[in-house]
Amino acid sequence: MSLLVVGSVAYDSIETPSAKRDDVLGGSATFFSYAASFFTDVRLVAVIGEDFLEADLDRLRQRRVDLTGLVREPGESFRWGGRYHDNMNERTTLFTYLNVFQSFKPVLPPSYRATPLVFLANIDPALQLDVLDQIESPELVACDTMNFWIDGKRDELLELLARIDVLVVNEEEALDLSGAHYVAGAGRAIQELGPRTVIIKRGEYGAVLFSDQDIFFVHGYPVEDLTDPTGAGDTFAGGFMGYLARTRDFSARNMRVATVVGSLMASFVVEGFSLEGLYNVDMQKIHERYRDFVAHTQFDPLKL
Amino acid sequence: MSLLVVGSVAYDSIETPSAKRDDVLGGSATFFSYAASFFTDVRLVAVIGEDFLEADLDRLRQRRVDLTGLVREPGESFRWGGRYHDNMNERTTLFTYLNVFQSFKPVLPPSYRATPLVFLANIDPALQLDVLDQIESPELVACDTMNFWIDGKRDELLELLARIDVLVVNEEEALDLSGAHYVAGAGRAIQELGPRTVIIKRGEYGAVLFSDQDIFFVHGYPVEDLTDPTGAGDTFAGGFMGYLARTRDFSARNMRVATVVGSLMASFVVEGFSLEGLYNVDMQKIHERYRDFVAHTQFDPLKL
Repeated sequence: MSLLVVGSVAYDSIETPSAKRDDVLGGSATFFSYAASFFTDVRLVAVIGEDFLEADLDRLRQRRVDLTGLVREPGESFRWGGRYHDNMNERTTLFTYLNVFQSFKPVLPPSYRATPLVFLANIDPALQLDVLDQIESPELVACDTMNFWIDGKRDELLELLARIDVLVVNEEEALDLSGAHYVAGAGRAIQELGPRTVIIKRGEYGAVLFSDQDIFFVHGYPVEDLTDPTGAGDTFAGGFMGYLARTRDFSARNMRVATVVGSLMASFVVEGFSLEGLYNVDMQKIHERYRDFVAHTQFDPLKL
Repeated sequence: MSLLVVGSVAYDSIETPSAKRDDVLGGSATFFSYAASFFTDVRLVAVIGEDFLEADLDRLRQRRVDLTGLVREPGESFRWGGRYHDNMNERTTLFTYLNVFQSFKPVLPPSYRATPLVFLANIDPALQLDVLDQIESPELVACDTMNFWIDGKRDELLELLARIDVLVVNEEEALDLSGAHYVAGAGRAIQELGPRTVIIKRGEYGAVLFSDQDIFFVHGYPVEDLTDPTGAGDTFAGGFMGYLARTRDFSARNMRVATVVGSLMASFVVEGFSLEGLYNVDMQKIHERYRDFVAHTQFDPLKL
């Protein structure tokens, strides 16, 4: 089952307490499509500038990501710079140059319009709605968003939420969007806004899945050598949606497995800068890490 | 199997964003012994002042907690006041009056000296060592500590850690004590200081158990109506140690179950002020909530 992603393809400049890397491959659609490509065919919609290197696009071509919807425009590519602090739980944005992304109006190539699974990465909800209008009867639509849109384009976001199946958001954003104080209330409140399924990402603590009446918790993998958290959320979403596309099963029960797959893919990507943590991943490593997740969470019945 | 706890019995004054309560029953030994009493016989060592109400002690007597080791001294009882902010993840201490606790020198009654399981709640590590010297060949000793002792009495704390089996600490304290940046490294590093088992508490996110080579994650129960987080950590420890005492099984596998029991007992106590969240708990409710923990964490094998 094919999977469509609309988002950014960009260059990131990253500072961590121990290292610094300039102009490395980044962007929400990049992380998402690379992660999802382990499980299904991915179609990408994004915009890049004249400066974007073919060698970087080759990374996605090697994973057979369909780049028909990647448009090159005059000007420079989207660039973001950030600095991580202490134990990498907090970061400061050093710069955001939207460049060609500023006038991004996603147009789906005809070959993309019947894609059954869709992920709308974190962009202006007005654009997310516009993309949704271009899709012919999708089977499952998921999206991400951020505080900037929750506070600034709430009406468009609420219109979008009423039309999607899965919302994937960070915990802080979920609390902001719902007005709830804790994760349980936030998940339930967001479900009432439209999406039957809500996934609240909690960084190194893992994620919580709310699917119909079901609640499921997955922990964050205990990475011993966290290198760069950039893209972890989009990689999570790529693993989650990729697994759903592969298994064609959108039940709450299978969503649980997909949530574990999302968490494990995210645990690989943070082990290196940019997408480097995913370059050596293969099916055997995915199965091994999945077994680790099982081993970390099993417990016996109560003996009372 | 009997269980001994040494810690504080105190009065707390609590402010939350929505309520305020003065002079409610508190103290580490109070929360611990009440929670553990659902599973085993508990012996308490602590000091109170002349002002402590018999009605409050009756709460512990009703749970058949052995108060032979509770000493009443001239003066006032230990009093602590705190204010919780926003979503209760942060708190400010408003006052700490040690009162009779300032000169607390725990002396074990003869009937306590052969207790097989011991929990040394968060007090001066010099006193924790002193208590340990009074116990005849305990089978399992656990302790808690805090940043104040990690920074101020590090030598005594290291001496203690070399002599105990289980350390139960908050994540921030675990990182401080170990110098590690992430939970996995912190657990491993603390195990090298002595305790074979380390439990890192993560507040609403749950806890991580490091037991020999084993790593186990439990989530925090999705409480919809968090009222007062005070005592959650000591209640967790009470559930954990109480379950070990009841089952007499200190294997890594049984420690996992005990960790879930700790997390579920903590989830009850935060639903009310002081110990109120525990007053209506019974075995049926413990079994029900345990089933919820199972339901929240099970997932199918990977279909790839």
